[in-house]
Amino acid sequence: MRCSLGPVSRNRAAVLHAVGDVRIEERRVPEPGPREVLVEVAAVGVCGSDVHYYEHGRIGDHVVRAPLVLGHESAGRVVALGDGATKHGVGDRVALEPGVPCGRCRECRAGRYNLCPDVVFFGTPPVDGAFANLVAIHEDFAFALPDSLSDEEGALMEPLSVGIWACRKAGVGAGDRVLVTGAGPIGLLAMQCALACGATEVTVSDLNPHRLEVARRTGATATVTPEDDVAGDFDALLECSGHPAAVAAGIRALRPAGTAVLVGMGPEEEGTLPLSVIQSREIWVTGTFRYADTYPAAIALAASGRVDLKAIVSARFGLDEAEAALRASREDPASVKPMVLP
Amino acid sequence: MRCSLGPVSRNRAAVLHAVGDVRIEERRVPEPGPREVLVEVAAVGVCGSDVHYYEHGRIGDHVVRAPLVLGHESAGRVVALGDGATKHGVGDRVALEPGVPCGRCRECRAGRYNLCPDVVFFGTPPVDGAFANLVAIHEDFAFALPDSLSDEEGALMEPLSVGIWACRKAGVGAGDRVLVTGAGPIGLLAMQCALACGATEVTVSDLNPHRLEVARRTGATATVTPEDDVAGDFDALLECSGHPAAVAAGIRALRPAGTAVLVGMGPEEEGTLPLSVIQSREIWVTGTFRYADTYPAAIALAASGRVDLKAIVSARFGLDEAEAALRASREDPASVKPMVLP
Amino acid sequence: MRCSLGPVSRNRAAVLHAVGDVRIEERRVPEPGPREVLVEVAAVGVCGSDVHYYEHGRIGDHVVRAPLVLGHESAGRVVALGDGATKHGVGDRVALEPGVPCGRCRECRAGRYNLCPDVVFFGTPPVDGAFANLVAIHEDFAFALPDSLSDEEGALMEPLSVGIWACRKAGVGAGDRVLVTGAGPIGLLAMQCALACGATEVTVSDLNPHRLEVARRTGATATVTPEDDVAGDFDALLECSGHPAAVAAGIRALRPAGTAVLVGMGPEEEGTLPLSVIQSREIWVTGTFRYADTYPAAIALAASGRVDLKAIVSARFGLDEAEAALRASREDPASVKPMVLP
Amino acid sequence: MRCSLGPVSRNRAAVLHAVGDVRIEERRVPEPGPREVLVEVAAVGVCGSDVHYYEHGRIGDHVVRAPLVLGHESAGRVVALGDGATKHGVGDRVALEPGVPCGRCRECRAGRYNLCPDVVFFGTPPVDGAFANLVAIHEDFAFALPDSLSDEEGALMEPLSVGIWACRKAGVGAGDRVLVTGAGPIGLLAMQCALACGATEVTVSDLNPHRLEVARRTGATATVTPEDDVAGDFDALLECSGHPAAVAAGIRALRPAGTAVLVGMGPEEEGTLPLSVIQSREIWVTGTFRYADTYPAAIALAASGRVDLKAIVSARFGLDEAEAALRASREDPASVKPMVLP
Repeated sequence: MRCSLGPVSRNRAAVLHAVGDVRIEERRVPEPGPREVLVEVAAVGVCGSDVHYYEHGRIGDHVVRAPLVLGHESAGRVVALGDGATKHGVGDRVALEPGVPCGRCRECRAGRYNLCPDVVFFGTPPVDGAFANLVAIHEDFAFALPDSLSDEEGALMEPLSVGIWACRKAGVGAGDRVLVTGAGPIGLLAMQCALACGATEVTVSDLNPHRLEVARRTGATATVTPEDDVAGDFDALLECSGHPAAVAAGIRALRPAGTAVLVGMGPEEEGTLPLSVIQSREIWVTGTFRYADTYPAAIALAASGRVDLKAIVSARFGLDEAEAALRASREDPASVKPMVLP
Repeated sequence: MRCSLGPVSRNRAAVLHAVGDVRIEERRVPEPGPREVLVEVAAVGVCGSDVHYYEHGRIGDHVVRAPLVLGHESAGRVVALGDGATKHGVGDRVALEPGVPCGRCRECRAGRYNLCPDVVFFGTPPVDGAFANLVAIHEDFAFALPDSLSDEEGALMEPLSVGIWACRKAGVGAGDRVLVTGAGPIGLLAMQCALACGATEVTVSDLNPHRLEVARRTGATATVTPEDDVAGDFDALLECSGHPAAVAAGIRALRPAGTAVLVGMGPEEEGTLPLSVIQSREIWVTGTFRYADTYPAAIALAASGRVDLKAIVSARFGLDEAEAALRASREDPASVKPMVLP
Repeated sequence: MRCSLGPVSRNRAAVLHAVGDVRIEERRVPEPGPREVLVEVAAVGVCGSDVHYYEHGRIGDHVVRAPLVLGHESAGRVVALGDGATKHGVGDRVALEPGVPCGRCRECRAGRYNLCPDVVFFGTPPVDGAFANLVAIHEDFAFALPDSLSDEEGALMEPLSVGIWACRKAGVGAGDRVLVTGAGPIGLLAMQCALACGATEVTVSDLNPHRLEVARRTGATATVTPEDDVAGDFDALLECSGHPAAVAAGIRALRPAGTAVLVGMGPEEEGTLPLSVIQSREIWVTGTFRYADTYPAAIALAASGRVDLKAIVSARFGLDEAEAALRASREDPASVKPMVLP
Repeated sequence: MRCSLGPVSRNRAAVLHAVGDVRIEERRVPEPGPREVLVEVAAVGVCGSDVHYYEHGRIGDHVVRAPLVLGHESAGRVVALGDGATKHGVGDRVALEPGVPCGRCRECRAGRYNLCPDVVFFGTPPVDGAFANLVAIHEDFAFALPDSLSDEEGALMEPLSVGIWACRKAGVGAGDRVLVTGAGPIGLLAMQCALACGATEVTVSDLNPHRLEVARRTGATATVTPEDDVAGDFDALLECSGHPAAVAAGIRALRPAGTAVLVGMGPEEEGTLPLSVIQSREIWVTGTFRYADTYPAAIALAASGRVDLKAIVSARFGLDEAEAALRASREDPASVKPMVLP
C-alpha cells in the first residue's frame, strides 16, 4: 500500500446506532484491498434515504441491524492505493460512485449493473458509508474531479446521476416538454438535467414555495403546485415526489407515447394508475433504481457549467454535526441539500 | 372506375341499430374514391369490440348514435378500382387493414399512426365496417394475400397484428420467457407471435380450460389458471385479459427491466399497480392501441407457416347470421373466434 | 379560398433555366388546394443543393429538365387558405417544412417519411421552390413561428432540422464528446444542436479559418484543421464535409460502439472505410437524408435561445439578386449562409 | 477445492508452438481460483480463428509469441470447484463462455463487455484455450447444459452466440427478409438465428455448393452464389464472408433504413462502401466483435429445437488429432465445423 495518510491517520465516523441515535466514533482506518483506493472524505451530501434510515431504521427490506455509517454522496482526496491500483495517484481529487456491482451476474452483463443483486453500496446495511474521514473503494468507482469542480460539487455527482438516469430513461431530448413533480434535491437536479438534454419547457410542481423558487432560479420555465391543473401535453414526466397521486396525474398530462419515470419513492408500495390512458395513448411507465454509467456524464455536465449544483446546497455541517444535518431537511422548510464536510 | 361487380352488384350488410338489435339491410354500393379499391368481403372475424358495441352500444367515448355496420377483421377480393388506384388489380385477393390514418399529424409523422386522432377505422362509430358484401378502402391499406392463405386467414391478419404489435412493444426476442395472461383470440395470437419471435418459454394463463387446450395445441410451453402462483422471472408480460389484477400479478412475475404490455382492455379505467416493484426492478409498463405497420409482417408470418390461424377459428356464420356470430362467444364457452363469411 | 392577397397579388420568382442561368419571371399566383395555405415568402436560405443545381443542373438522379424555381429553406406569412385549412389564420407567420410525403407508403408508415419515394419537395425537379413571392403548401407543413423568431430564423428551421436529425441519429446526449467535420452551415448548426442536446465537448474541423471562427463563437470547445491529428475518443462523428477521407478518419477517432453519421454529400458515390475498426469497435455508421419530424423541436430550440441562428447568416439579397446569392458562397470565403428576402 | 478429478488427474493439451506446429503435451492441472470451476472438456469446435493462428501465427495485433493452447468453443463437465464457487456442482455439464471481462471498465459498465480491453479470452494469446483435458473458468461463465443438449451442441453455443449477436445488432424480427453472405459455420448459424427470430425470407450466398446444400437443409428460403444478382429489398444483411465486395453489394440490396452487420473478418482492413446509398437510404452499418450476454438465449434456442446444430458438424477428431482438425476445413471442401473431442 502506497500512501500519504499523514493527517488522516485516524478515522472518525458518524454512526447510526438506532432510530434517532447517531454517535461520533473512532473507527479503524480501512485497508484498501486490491485495486482499491483509500479516500479522505471532503464532502458528503445528506440524502433522503439517509434521513429515512435515521428516522425509521429501515427502507423496505433493508434494515439497520448493526451500527451503520450512513452517507453515499461523497467526494474527497486519494490518500493511499491498494495493490494494483493505478488509475489515480495519491493526492488526486475524486468523486465516488458509491455502489460497486459484481460485474458478472445477469444484470451486470446486460448493462444494468444498478440492478445487480450483489452490489456493495455505501450506507446501505450492512455496508458502511461516507460520513467518515476515510473510505476505501475500487479505483474504477472513483472518478477524477477537474479543478473547476469543488468537493461539494463532486459529492453531488451522486444525486445528479439520479437525474441523468431519469432523463435517459425518459429519453429527454432537444425541444422536449417535461413535467417534474417534486422539487426536492432530486427533482431539482432532474429538472436541470432535462434542460441540459435540450428540454425547452420544464414545469416543476411542489407545495414548498422555497423549492419552487430554487426551481425558477435554476431554469424551470414554469412552476405550479399539485393543486394546479397541469393541462398538458408533456413528452416526459419525471416523478420525484413519491406520491402515487402525482404519478397518476402526471400520466394524464402526457402526450401519446410519452414516458413517465418514477424516481421518487413514497411510503406506499402500490398506487392507482389510469390504465386506460396508458393503453389508449400507449404511454410508457417505468421507474429508476439508482443509476448506471452516469458519472462521466455527470462530471462533464457539471464541469461545462450546464448544471448549477451550488444552487441546491442549503447548509453545511461538520462531521460532528452529522445528526443536525440529518435533521435539517425535516426542521427547516427552506432546506434543500445539507452537506457534511468531514 | 374500372370494375367487375357482376354478382355483387348489391350490398347487403348487418347493421347495428341499438343494443342487441342487428338487422340485415340493403345498403348502397360504395363508390371507391381516388386511389381506393372496392372489395367484395369474403371473411370477417368477430372481435370482442364488435361484441361490446352489440351489448353496450359504446366503448368508452365511442358511442353508437346512428345505425352502424360492425366488423373490422376482413379480407376479400378487389372488384373495382377508384381513380388512380394501381396497386391491385380487379380479382386480387386482399387483407384489409381497417384504419386509415391522416398521414400528416404529429402522431403519423412520428411513426405511430395508430394514435392518429383523425384515423378512419372500420366498425367504429360513425364509420361503417365490414359485415357487408362490399367495402371501399385506400389501396395502400389493402394487402395482397398469397394463394397459400385462405380468406379467413386473411381476415385474421387483424388480430394477428395486435399480437405482433404487443410483441414489438415488449421487445420479445430469441430465448425469451413470456407470460401471456388471457387466452382469448388476442392472447392466443400474441402467444403464437411470441413463439415466432423466438420466445422459448411461453406460459399462458386463463380460467377457461377450452382456451388453455388451444394454447397448448398451438405451442404454449405451460398453461396455468389465474389462481396458480406464477413464480416467475419472465422477460415480458403480454396482458390480454383486461383484469387489473392480472396486470399487477404479471408485473410481479417479471425479471428486472422486464416489460409489461397491457393489450386487453377491461371495464375499469384504473388499476392498482405495484409501484415499488416497477421502481426497484425498473420494469417497463405500456399498453397497446391497435397497431402500426404490422400487415406485411403478419402476412409473411402466416404465409411461412409460423402461426396457426385455423386453430383459433371456432365457428362460421353467414352474413344473415351475423347476430348469432356476435352472440357465440358469450353463449359457447368453447368459442374462440367466430367468423362471418358474407 | 379565404385570403388577404392585397399587395402580393403578383408572384415573381427566380427561375433556373439552365446551368448558370437564373431569370426573374412573373409566375401565376398558386391556388392553394384543399387544406393548403398560400404563403407570402419573407426569407429563404441558400442551400448547397441550390448552388449545386445552379452550377451543375443536377444532383445525382435529380435532373433539371424544365425551368425550376429553387429554394427550400423558407418562412413567411399566410395570405390565403385553401378549402378545409384551419390550422393557421391569414396573417400568421410560419416556417415551411419543404417536403410533403405521401403519408401512406411503407416508409411513411414506419415513421421515416423523409424516405418517402413520393415526397413533393420544394426546389427539387420538377417541383418549384421558394425563391418566389408566393408558395402553397399543406397546412400541416407550415409551423407557427413565435414572435421571438425572425423570418430569417424561421427559414433556418430547415438546415437546423438537418442538424437535429443528425444528432438524433447519433444519439447525442448529455456529456457526449462530438466531432463535427466540415463547418459549413450544416456543420455549424449540427454543432449547435449537439451542444443543445448536452454534448460537453465538440470539436469542429474545417480548412476555412472564417468558418472555424464562427464555430468557436457559437460554442465549439475545440477547432482543428483536417491535417491535425484528432486523436480521439468521441461518442459521435457528425460528418458534414462530404469528404470520404473525413469519414474514414472520423470513424477511427470514435470510441467503441460510437456512431458516425454521414450528413455531407460529396461528389463521390463510394468511399474507403476502415472495416476492421467498424468491426473490432462495433462502430455504427449511417447517413442522413433530409429529416423527419424535426420542425417542432427546431422551433422550440430556437425560441428558447439554445441555438444562435443569426451567427451563420453572412449576407442578404433581394429576390432580384437571387443569382448573386447563389454565387456568394463560391465567391466569398467568409460566406456561410446567404439569405434571399423576396 | 472440492473435486472429483479421478480419471482426469492429468491434463493433456494440443499446443501451438509455431505456424503449422501443434504438439500434444502434458500440461499442469489448472487450480481453480476463487469462484472458478475446473471443467473436464468434452467437446471443442474448431473456429476459423483457430485455423488462422495455426496458419499465420497471428490475427491482427494478437500475435502468438509463446506456446499456446487454441480452442474457445467448448463444453464439458465440472470436476472441481474453487473457493466460493456455488453455482454448479461437481458433475454438472456446462457450456463455457470463453471470455471473462473485467466487469468494471467503461465498456463493461455500458453493457458491451465484449469490447472490454481487459477481457481474458480462451485461445487468444497469451491465454490458453480449450484443446485440453481441463480448463478453469469463473463459474458465472459456465452455463448449465440441459440433458437434451449434447456436449457438441454445448460447445457450439459459442458460434451460435455469434449468430445471435449478429441478429440482435441487425434487429431481425418477425417477417423480416434477411441476406446472409457466406455460408461457413457462422453464416449458417446466423441464418438459423434469423429464422428463429422470425425472419421469413432468408437468402444465403456462397460459392461452395456443399455449404449452400446445408443452408437449404437448415431453412434457407433461397440460396445464391456471389455472381448472382441479388436484386433485393432486404431488411438486414448479415455479412459472414469477410469479403468487402460482399459488404458493398449487400448494402445495395437493403431496403431504406435497413441494417448491414459485418460479422466475417477478411484479410483487408479497409473496404470500399457505397456511401451515397448509405446516405440516401439511411442505411445502418455496423460490425460484431464476439458477443455479449447471449449464452442463456443460445441454450434456450438450442434446447427448444429452434436451431439445428448437428447439421453443421462435419467431422470429429480426438485431442491427438487436433492438428488434423485444424487442417480439415482447408483440405475438405465439404467441411463445415470440425469438432475435437478430448
